[in-house]
Amino acid sequence: MKKIVKNGTIVTASDTYQADLAIVDGKIAMIGTDLNEEGAEVVDADGCYVFPGGVDPHTHFEMPFGGTVSKDDFETGTIAAAYGGTTTVIDFCLSSKGEPLKNAIQTWHDKSKDKAVIDYGFHLMIGEITDDVLNELPMVIEEEGITSFKVFMAYKNVLQADDETLFRTLITAKELGALVMVHAENGDVIDYLVKKALAEGNTDPIYHALTRPPEAEGEATGRAAQLTGLANSQLYVVHVSCAEAVEKISEARNKGYDVWGETCPQYLVLDQTALEKPDFEGAKYVWSPPLRDKSNQEVLWKALKNGQLQTLGSDQCSFDFKGQKELGKGDFTKIPNGGPMVEDRVSILFSEGVKNGRITLNQFVEIMATRTAKLFGVFPQKGTIAVGSDADIVIFDPTIERIISVDTHHMAVDYNAFEGMKVTGEPVTVLSRGEFVIKDKRFVGNPGSGQYLKRRKYNEQ
Amino acid sequence: MKKIVKNGTIVTASDTYQADLAIVDGKIAMIGTDLNEEGAEVVDADGCYVFPGGVDPHTHFEMPFGGTVSKDDFETGTIAAAYGGTTTVIDFCLSSKGEPLKNAIQTWHDKSKDKAVIDYGFHLMIGEITDDVLNELPMVIEEEGITSFKVFMAYKNVLQADDETLFRTLITAKELGALVMVHAENGDVIDYLVKKALAEGNTDPIYHALTRPPEAEGEATGRAAQLTGLANSQLYVVHVSCAEAVEKISEARNKGYDVWGETCPQYLVLDQTALEKPDFEGAKYVWSPPLRDKSNQEVLWKALKNGQLQTLGSDQCSFDFKGQKELGKGDFTKIPNGGPMVEDRVSILFSEGVKNGRITLNQFVEIMATRTAKLFGVFPQKGTIAVGSDADIVIFDPTIERIISVDTHHMAVDYNAFEGMKVTGEPVTVLSRGEFVIKDKRFVGNPGSGQYLKRRKYNEQ
Amino acid sequence: MKKIVKNGTIVTASDTYQADLAIVDGKIAMIGTDLNEEGAEVVDADGCYVFPGGVDPHTHFEMPFGGTVSKDDFETGTIAAAYGGTTTVIDFCLSSKGEPLKNAIQTWHDKSKDKAVIDYGFHLMIGEITDDVLNELPMVIEEEGITSFKVFMAYKNVLQADDETLFRTLITAKELGALVMVHAENGDVIDYLVKKALAEGNTDPIYHALTRPPEAEGEATGRAAQLTGLANSQLYVVHVSCAEAVEKISEARNKGYDVWGETCPQYLVLDQTALEKPDFEGAKYVWSPPLRDKSNQEVLWKALKNGQLQTLGSDQCSFDFKGQKELGKGDFTKIPNGGPMVEDRVSILFSEGVKNGRITLNQFVEIMATRTAKLFGVFPQKGTIAVGSDADIVIFDPTIERIISVDTHHMAVDYNAFEGMKVTGEPVTVLSRGEFVIKDKRFVGNPGSGQYLKRRKYNEQ
Amino acid sequence: MKKIVKNGTIVTASDTYQADLAIVDGKIAMIGTDLNEEGAEVVDADGCYVFPGGVDPHTHFEMPFGGTVSKDDFETGTIAAAYGGTTTVIDFCLSSKGEPLKNAIQTWHDKSKDKAVIDYGFHLMIGEITDDVLNELPMVIEEEGITSFKVFMAYKNVLQADDETLFRTLITAKELGALVMVHAENGDVIDYLVKKALAEGNTDPIYHALTRPPEAEGEATGRAAQLTGLANSQLYVVHVSCAEAVEKISEARNKGYDVWGETCPQYLVLDQTALEKPDFEGAKYVWSPPLRDKSNQEVLWKALKNGQLQTLGSDQCSFDFKGQKELGKGDFTKIPNGGPMVEDRVSILFSEGVKNGRITLNQFVEIMATRTAKLFGVFPQKGTIAVGSDADIVIFDPTIERIISVDTHHMAVDYNAFEGMKVTGEPVTVLSRGEFVIKDKRFVGNPGSGQYLKRRKYNEQ
Repeated sequence: MKKIVKNGTIVTASDTYQADLAIVDGKIAMIGTDLNEEGAEVVDADGCYVFPGGVDPHTHFEMPFGGTVSKDDFETGTIAAAYGGTTTVIDFCLSSKGEPLKNAIQTWHDKSKDKAVIDYGFHLMIGEITDDVLNELPMVIEEEGITSFKVFMAYKNVLQADDETLFRTLITAKELGALVMVHAENGDVIDYLVKKALAEGNTDPIYHALTRPPEAEGEATGRAAQLTGLANSQLYVVHVSCAEAVEKISEARNKGYDVWGETCPQYLVLDQTALEKPDFEGAKYVWSPPLRDKSNQEVLWKALKNGQLQTLGSDQCSFDFKGQKELGKGDFTKIPNGGPMVEDRVSILFSEGVKNGRITLNQFVEIMATRTAKLFGVFPQKGTIAVGSDADIVIFDPTIERIISVDTHHMAVDYNAFEGMKVTGEPVTVLSRGEFVIKDKRFVGNPGSGQYLKRRKYNEQ
Repeated sequence: MKKIVKNGTIVTASDTYQADLAIVDGKIAMIGTDLNEEGAEVVDADGCYVFPGGVDPHTHFEMPFGGTVSKDDFETGTIAAAYGGTTTVIDFCLSSKGEPLKNAIQTWHDKSKDKAVIDYGFHLMIGEITDDVLNELPMVIEEEGITSFKVFMAYKNVLQADDETLFRTLITAKELGALVMVHAENGDVIDYLVKKALAEGNTDPIYHALTRPPEAEGEATGRAAQLTGLANSQLYVVHVSCAEAVEKISEARNKGYDVWGETCPQYLVLDQTALEKPDFEGAKYVWSPPLRDKSNQEVLWKALKNGQLQTLGSDQCSFDFKGQKELGKGDFTKIPNGGPMVEDRVSILFSEGVKNGRITLNQFVEIMATRTAKLFGVFPQKGTIAVGSDADIVIFDPTIERIISVDTHHMAVDYNAFEGMKVTGEPVTVLSRGEFVIKDKRFVGNPGSGQYLKRRKYNEQ
Repeated sequence: MKKIVKNGTIVTASDTYQADLAIVDGKIAMIGTDLNEEGAEVVDADGCYVFPGGVDPHTHFEMPFGGTVSKDDFETGTIAAAYGGTTTVIDFCLSSKGEPLKNAIQTWHDKSKDKAVIDYGFHLMIGEITDDVLNELPMVIEEEGITSFKVFMAYKNVLQADDETLFRTLITAKELGALVMVHAENGDVIDYLVKKALAEGNTDPIYHALTRPPEAEGEATGRAAQLTGLANSQLYVVHVSCAEAVEKISEARNKGYDVWGETCPQYLVLDQTALEKPDFEGAKYVWSPPLRDKSNQEVLWKALKNGQLQTLGSDQCSFDFKGQKELGKGDFTKIPNGGPMVEDRVSILFSEGVKNGRITLNQFVEIMATRTAKLFGVFPQKGTIAVGSDADIVIFDPTIERIISVDTHHMAVDYNAFEGMKVTGEPVTVLSRGEFVIKDKRFVGNPGSGQYLKRRKYNEQ
Repeated sequence: MKKIVKNGTIVTASDTYQADLAIVDGKIAMIGTDLNEEGAEVVDADGCYVFPGGVDPHTHFEMPFGGTVSKDDFETGTIAAAYGGTTTVIDFCLSSKGEPLKNAIQTWHDKSKDKAVIDYGFHLMIGEITDDVLNELPMVIEEEGITSFKVFMAYKNVLQADDETLFRTLITAKELGALVMVHAENGDVIDYLVKKALAEGNTDPIYHALTRPPEAEGEATGRAAQLTGLANSQLYVVHVSCAEAVEKISEARNKGYDVWGETCPQYLVLDQTALEKPDFEGAKYVWSPPLRDKSNQEVLWKALKNGQLQTLGSDQCSFDFKGQKELGKGDFTKIPNGGPMVEDRVSILFSEGVKNGRITLNQFVEIMATRTAKLFGVFPQKGTIAVGSDADIVIFDPTIERIISVDTHHMAVDYNAFEGMKVTGEPVTVLSRGEFVIKDKRFVGNPGSGQYLKRRKYNEQ
């Protein structure tokens, strides 16, 4: 069965042009003017942009955290992603210390395979580099196609790796062709400040931000970048939130280090004052790193424009306010970290970025899809509109104005962090490998239709 | 008449994929797998890359300079460009002080129109911002489609503008939607050093370099960038040669200033020692800014990779060694500045950049074509391979190894600055608006077939 | 006649200690514990600091400016200086273009010699570097002992020198052993902005600040520093007002360039909002560079603490509000630039700097006296308390609290820019070469007793 | 008994002047011209500089290290120090984990009290911040006058503290008024590289340098500085060896952080190639941080000149080549780290610094004595020549030329790292609290005459 997307404006990371697009067997078969073929299903894109489906490099579906589990799973999460114009997610597979990686990965396959409505891959979170782990890594890369490993510089005594582990991971990744991802905050400093705050009776959500100062993020980012340079390896800094970290990434890149940075929608439009909302509502805005002073927003936007930061992850990790976020009443350290974000990532970047003149339309595509697909080894299958690529396509009406709200979103949680925010532009129709997932703004896909992506190595991009 | 380019690997600033490409009426009409149509001329690209034709933002054809005239004109120059894989050039139209801009532009139309074999546009060099000049600028932009103006911070008492002229030009350009180009060297410092060198009897070519220190370029670059920030305008720094200037552009961009930088092939692969060649041969390597210490080369490559510099211009301005460069025997200031470069620009970037792993294939296209087309208002007509764009196409065999030499080049001068250099990759066939200009490595075009390009405004890109 | 200063705490740029001090023939003859000698006059300093007299590197007494003349002359100006704890001033001798330097200097000798109550030297403002000027400079240095020359990068078409003049002055100064001083603002940019403001009818004092943006100062400061590096010469940047300029000086010093920076009291404690005072009172606060945003104050203080800036000049150039400042009503460009400052320089640095913990007591002495004396070739005759030095001594009571006011100051003008400001500390007694100028807070000196200082060369410090 | 030092040129951190100096009861009682007193012993200083005795902030006498003990103890070490013009040393008291601090300090008192010939204090090396340690610290400061604590970021699994310990130490030091000293190298990175080198059979001394790259020092320095800023505390970085670390200290100071840096003679004049000397001689040049590429030397000198670094420590920790350094044959990690340096510290700074025009005479005194005395709470008792200060005085003949050699030095080891180096200037006579220790280049002092210095708190300087 063949489909023809007609009359749209195709946008890639480089180009913007009027053309029709033919889909055969789930792939883009042809792009041209006035494509017509008898029997083909015509999808009208008149007045709309035709984007590659978004690639979200950073989700945590159904993830255990602090005694609870993130609310959106691979079903509700990928449906929401699709509504928002995202057709690929890369989720973090969590391994416990001592557990064989094989088992951890199997757990994630079990969580996802009958649920996902769009295609997905896994990153691997590594808690410890032991000889066992080292021995399994070639299998992880070659057989599972998991070619990115995450290391934590924060969460002392839980996930935090020491510098030797980070350095060794960087060197190993270089040898194996993988990309190291890092959560860059100085966990020792934070641990001290947190204990001090609690000892002084400071338990409100705002202390989550006050005990994780931007300098702790800047320091760790600079350290990770320096170790990457020494290891002659490659690094991807997740969820960059502040000027201090941007500066370190920029310095490293100027030295020629192979260092990349991701920011998230929340850091672009929200700020630290949200944590001070009354009635414990501040807990809704607890991410790590925390929301920052408003002045950081323009720094992040400029960094996206200038290429000092390159990608946008949702860091989707949603918890209900009732019953989940509330676990932290009286002790901010018990508030589950994270929020619902996978659905609004693309729209916020378009509305605040393109419409407000901060980035170009092509940069928008590069940031929300193309660069991510390249870095994580799924390009050009994903992340662009080109002949031979998967027909993961978003038909996006840039004229629609709407209000983000928990009342209309499709994530499984009881609040939306952007409640009441007006955005311009909305995905109308979304295809995954040529099949409709969203059609005329309604979900028409099938849980389980999403396929697992074995990703190529970093050095094969 | 229709052509189909078959079996090649299409490369754009973003994408790399296998597909065929159909050309109708000089435009790219369709891209797809297994395109076939009866009667269409098939152009085989098997084993080759299919690039957009190069866009050279910086040529000086038949330009008067120091009592002589640059040797390559719009005919030999554009033929050489085409051989090298370039299908668009933007040449600098020189206006004399007091001369109506209209006349200067007409002179350039006269020089070019029956000669060019590929399409071309003009920049305007402005010597002085008078009220007359200001009054003519809207015409220059609206009627002539010349949307970039060059200001000189060097060549004291000849072309050099003072800071007020530069600042006023920046403000005017912002209002009118034009891009200011700047030759950034501190002419006052250079003028002093040159007079001093001559007074001390230092007349050899190497003194050209020694009297134009990199600090003078860095200073002027920083000044121009700062004035751009103050004017909230846009700036393009031509022929960046050294670390000092890269640093200033990078700083400006990090502040969010709209500043762009171009480098040239000679700065990427040659160095200052060339000016010391015996028998006055050093004169062949006289450019302004001069060749620099070798250590700058890696800085420039990193800047291209990181996006601190964005384009590559040839600064083509060729003079014979015999009779022209020799004018400077006994006085380096009389050596005509410039060299033959338009033909080798693309090949050097590919061979030294892509083959040597310094930049990616997509970056190569971005740098040699796409970004330039965008900055100068001819995108997407030029600079990419997309449906609806002009069929300016290069079929490039990346496996050919060859030696650059005056014996085989097509420029009209008696030497090649890269004589003896081995490069990998060669344009085999080149089309301009769908017509063959180079076919199987031979020129088959027609002087006069190149069309003048009215360019869009900067803010309409 | 001999004097003994008893029971004070002697403070130098390095040391703080309790000791007595004997003065013989105008010089410090001995420092020790329990000095006593029959017949010696005892000056009690119990509870007080004993500082070297301040050295003010930057005054404009009786200076013609914009059709008027600065109000304080060498008599009222040096009396006020002495009241404030300053015992040496270096005033700017202004030469007109074409006028022999000899004449200009004679004019300044005539202005000063029967009036000054403390010792003084001259800097020379150079409008133009002609061959005549060059020929006279050795005389200026060797015979007149004027070893510092000022160049203006602002005041277009009036005082502004082009870069070649600045560069040539730097090279000449290096050869002759002089220090180049620079007023670093980009006069071309300012000239454009001023004309634009006036054309738009913006004539109020605040436009003085708005047409001289900090970027114009930063740019010029960086340029002057870069030219100094190229010339391998030495530079002193006067009246640094903003973060942009501090950054450039810091960068230059880190590269090893011999670059120094002076700030002024007004930039440390006042800010740009003062120019918005109603009833044209903003005119009282018109300096060039202008007062800046308040955020610059802490940058300047940190720079003094860290040694990025080294000296404090008063830039004394006082005009009455009535009749003088008022010349600029309806046209801010006609407001005479400058203010009364020589009297309060030391007290403000002590009160805001030392008392508020921003600098140490020894840094205070270094900044207000010692470093200046060293840079300008009058050390150790001036600027310290050491055996053999001139007995220019301030007995300073650090406990007195007082209010700065036009009602109590001793400058000849009708307002004080710090009116109402509370400061801690006051000079009680001031000696110049061992003679009382201020005794128990009252002036007891004699006009004409101040001596002209022939200063040593920069490289002989 | 009274002494008068006559006819010398007194030099302090600020001043240089001709005067005589009278000593009474071990203190400087008077400074003046032509001092004479019957019965006083005259010490002739004609043609010589009269400096304050050097203050060496960094010695390790009789220190256990890697199964051996550093050769020079408090007797030979302080005699050598005195020969070299140093009259105060601050030695590092080493505490074992678990050992009460009281005991560790007593051990150091036992090592020193009957041996030292000059005055001395202790720093405390803290291995671990436990509650016991915290409880003892007030006693250490108040009773023992030990007001500086050292933390190691290197020597993994031995001395290395984690970031929480460093951060907690910084916060505690702020509260108690102590100065935190840090050995800034990333021990995790080094540990990895060392294990790798050994595993690959790379055991020669040069691998000591190759496994401790400058980036590891730069990273740790930046981290320590950032933690200091966050803690609003004070930091002193010992033995800075490279540009990477200087840059971080400079950045921190520009932000207003209270961060200081010490370098050592070896980094100023030796370089990494020394470790490649044949016959295992490279082992003589094993310090941590290691000697660096020669290009770092000028960076360090500039940093001393500009005030980015402030002090010079010897890091004296001497081992015989025979029998001690040789322990590392076949395994560079077993080479005892350190070298004989306390004797040549002052002379090298004078000869290479002052004589070669890199720093001024006053900066020399500031660096080798005054600033150190101020930072470590013994000023003005030590570190200057002022009335009331201890008469720790060096009479230094700046005209003597001599060759540094093991044959003539007074340290107890069998080699000198500067063997054969020509220096200009030599201490002729050295007094400690008014008593001769060195007289006419011969040791005349008494072991045990040196007194222990209880130092003031950091915030009382």
